[in-house]
Amino acid sequence: MALLVVGSIAFDSIKTQRGQVDRILGGSATYFSLAASYFTDVRVVAVVGDDFTAEHEAVLKRRGVATDGIERASGKTFFWSGEYGENFNEAKTLVTDLNVFQNFHPQVPKNYLNSEFLFLANIDPLLQAGLRRQMGGARLVGGDTMNYWINHKPQELGETLKLIDVLLINDTEARMLSGDSSLPRVANKVLARGPRGLVVKHGEYGATIFFREGAFGIGKHPFRAPALPIEEVRDPTGAGDSFAGGFMGYIASQGDLNREVLKRAMFYGGVMGSFAVERFGPERLTNLTREEIDARFEIFRELTHLDGAGK
Amino acid sequence: MALLVVGSIAFDSIKTQRGQVDRILGGSATYFSLAASYFTDVRVVAVVGDDFTAEHEAVLKRRGVATDGIERASGKTFFWSGEYGENFNEAKTLVTDLNVFQNFHPQVPKNYLNSEFLFLANIDPLLQAGLRRQMGGARLVGGDTMNYWINHKPQELGETLKLIDVLLINDTEARMLSGDSSLPRVANKVLARGPRGLVVKHGEYGATIFFREGAFGIGKHPFRAPALPIEEVRDPTGAGDSFAGGFMGYIASQGDLNREVLKRAMFYGGVMGSFAVERFGPERLTNLTREEIDARFEIFRELTHLDGAGK
Repeated sequence: MALLVVGSIAFDSIKTQRGQVDRILGGSATYFSLAASYFTDVRVVAVVGDDFTAEHEAVLKRRGVATDGIERASGKTFFWSGEYGENFNEAKTLVTDLNVFQNFHPQVPKNYLNSEFLFLANIDPLLQAGLRRQMGGARLVGGDTMNYWINHKPQELGETLKLIDVLLINDTEARMLSGDSSLPRVANKVLARGPRGLVVKHGEYGATIFFREGAFGIGKHPFRAPALPIEEVRDPTGAGDSFAGGFMGYIASQGDLNREVLKRAMFYGGVMGSFAVERFGPERLTNLTREEIDARFEIFRELTHLDGAGK
Repeated sequence: MALLVVGSIAFDSIKTQRGQVDRILGGSATYFSLAASYFTDVRVVAVVGDDFTAEHEAVLKRRGVATDGIERASGKTFFWSGEYGENFNEAKTLVTDLNVFQNFHPQVPKNYLNSEFLFLANIDPLLQAGLRRQMGGARLVGGDTMNYWINHKPQELGETLKLIDVLLINDTEARMLSGDSSLPRVANKVLARGPRGLVVKHGEYGATIFFREGAFGIGKHPFRAPALPIEEVRDPTGAGDSFAGGFMGYIASQGDLNREVLKRAMFYGGVMGSFAVERFGPERLTNLTREEIDARFEIFRELTHLDGAGK
């Protein structure tokens, strides 16, 4: 089934302890759609500038991603530059040039309105809410946000939370959004504000999904997926968006929305995140096979699963 | 089979956001032996002072722990006082009075020398090595250490590492010991120095065991056990020692040392750690049943396991 993502397309200059790259294709919509493209039909709504060429677009098109929702504006594409220390926990942002992204007023193209699944990447919560309302028929809506909106547009974000089924954020954002530090209490507070599911991403330690009582008919027990202990992380940029792409893409590929599908979606999210960090930028996400993905899925299973039922 | 632990018995004064307690029974050997007592026969070697009463000893004895290896010295028992902030990540130590622990020269009593399993809790690596040599017949030796020894007795610690089968330390200690930040590289470096297995404890995110290639005949794939998302952590003191107690206790209760036993031991470690933090001090570890423990084991399984083999 079709999955629509609305987010950013950007050029990134990235420096880590393993090397650096200059002005490579990036942005939440790029990582998300590439990761999701291995599971389902993906459509992108984003904005780019004059410097976004047919070659850049071909990176998405080669993965079957529908790109006619990418608006071309006069000016330059969103540019971000950042640097990571040895621990890869957080990027130090050096430059953020919003450029054409600053005046992004996304509209869902008519031929995308029938998308059954929607992911609202990290953009202004007011825009997220407007997009969600255009997509009244969506079966499941996932969303992301960030510290900036939590601090500067808490009310607008609060309205958006009511319109989202599953919110995907990291530990720091989750604690900031809830004003609490205990993860289960964080989850209760966030779930009380709207979403039926909350995915908290723990970086190298994996991610946990919490459910609202009765949500998806599956009770409230959380589920935790691992991340892969990777010897050589080259570039963590986009890992969270790749997680979201694998998570939403797998869900969109399945008929049912049940606990087992959501659990597997958590694993596939971790799998796509683990591929993303192996190379700079989204490169690794452009040349995978479903067989490689499923082989890594099995490694994730082996990493976490006991064999039998005995004691 | 019998499991011998050598470590500290202490009195702790602890303050957390959930309350405080004064001079309650603590120490690595206390948490370890209580946690392990639900799985196997446990023997303790430690030192206490005049203030350690028959009532304190009875806490261990009621759990069937053999206490005749506890040396009574003239003076006061090891005293520690600390405070935790909202995130429970690290204690701020307020007071450390080593007292009788300062001159602790542990000897394994003759009737303990036949113990098949040995755990060397966090004490001077020179003492650890001496104890290990007294216990040449042990089938598996686990060990702990801390930042202080890593920084101040690196050579002695290096010798001890050669004598230990499984080292259990936390993320910070593992990175400090190896001088590296990527967990798989950390593991390779530590395993090259002696241990066949390395357990890295990630606090609220669980723990990972790495194996030396060919160790235990099981290849080198790591295994990750979760921690329980606990709404109300009261006091994290002793969580790591309780993990070690569950881990070593379960291993000692099994005949075989294979991958499946070690995986389950990781789960039981997490389970005992999750109980320990629910109350101040070791209280929760004094009144459990094996049924409660196995019920929580199943919650850990549900938290991490996919149901079937499909895709």
